[in-house]
Amino acid sequence: MRIFGIDPGSIRTGYGCVETDGSRHRLVASGALSAPPKATFPEKLDAIHRGLTELLARTRPGCVVIETLFYAKNVRSALRLGHARGVAVLAATQAGLQVFEYSPAEVKRAVVGYGRAEKTQVQQMVALLLGLDVPPAPHDASDALAIALCHSHSRPPPGAPAVALDSLAASAARPRSWRQYQPAGSKR
Amino acid sequence: MRIFGIDPGSIRTGYGCVETDGSRHRLVASGALSAPPKATFPEKLDAIHRGLTELLARTRPGCVVIETLFYAKNVRSALRLGHARGVAVLAATQAGLQVFEYSPAEVKRAVVGYGRAEKTQVQQMVALLLGLDVPPAPHDASDALAIALCHSHSRPPPGAPAVALDSLAASAARPRSWRQYQPAGSKR
Repeated sequence: MRIFGIDPGSIRTGYGCVETDGSRHRLVASGALSAPPKATFPEKLDAIHRGLTELLARTRPGCVVIETLFYAKNVRSALRLGHARGVAVLAATQAGLQVFEYSPAEVKRAVVGYGRAEKTQVQQMVALLLGLDVPPAPHDASDALAIALCHSHSRPPPGAPAVALDSLAASAARPRSWRQYQPAGSKR
Repeated sequence: MRIFGIDPGSIRTGYGCVETDGSRHRLVASGALSAPPKATFPEKLDAIHRGLTELLARTRPGCVVIETLFYAKNVRSALRLGHARGVAVLAATQAGLQVFEYSPAEVKRAVVGYGRAEKTQVQQMVALLLGLDVPPAPHDASDALAIALCHSHSRPPPGAPAVALDSLAASAARPRSWRQYQPAGSKR
């Protein structure tokens, strides 16, 4: 089973594809897509969409996994991130693939075992789980691999209904932010 | 010259195409794209992208115009809007069309002559400018037509450099929000 993780961004979009049997994992491909710095914003979106479409055709994963976005510095940066994430989700859907999503805390819990782990811990675990000496560069690529590995650990049994991208819909039952993961009574 | 306006939204995306010689305008097509209510969010994005791609191929405009987004209720709704706007911009870019954008105040100033006009005033002017008895329904369609008409009024002379979608980039010289249009000393 191949899982394709995406860490979208308007400047650089990380991707990482892993092959997994649920316990052993192998790196298939990873890297980051970026447009020339002087590209217009529409050209950047086109570069993300075209790059992901090509990578999905080449790696032929069974599904796509993307991080849930809750947080952005402000409304404008949320809008910009939303554009990049939108064309990434579109590329997956056009490839006929289901899109799953996990919050940053879910990714950390699945990969490191602790929802508030540091980014460097996550990257070290990515390297360890994939049998690599160092985490794949750039860090967007490692982040995308962590998202893919998270899904390999969280995969529901065959036949179970998939919850795809409902963080942006109204209904939301499972924990949706870091705060919700804090044990009751813990100090903020 | 045909101008295609888009008013993107995650639930419904308005569109409106006008033919114009700069002073006289004719309605080519207008309406709103929506996915079935039970569609997943990725399916909704796919429906927006597919619908716009088909409409752009059919109406063959010279450019696409979209409203600048500054405001959203919160980061989550900005993210959701960003997804929809991202796939709309992508459809235009893939069709080889340049994307222009105007703020809500610029649209109102161009169409009604007053940057803080009411939505109903804008819609009445859209009907008047297009020689229609009533504004095209739904209101998303009229809003998209207003954006297209704004560009017909603001079109720079041939050869002038186009400013496309830079509201999401760092540089921003022209007024970018309603507030900036307020006359000095006016009461908030």
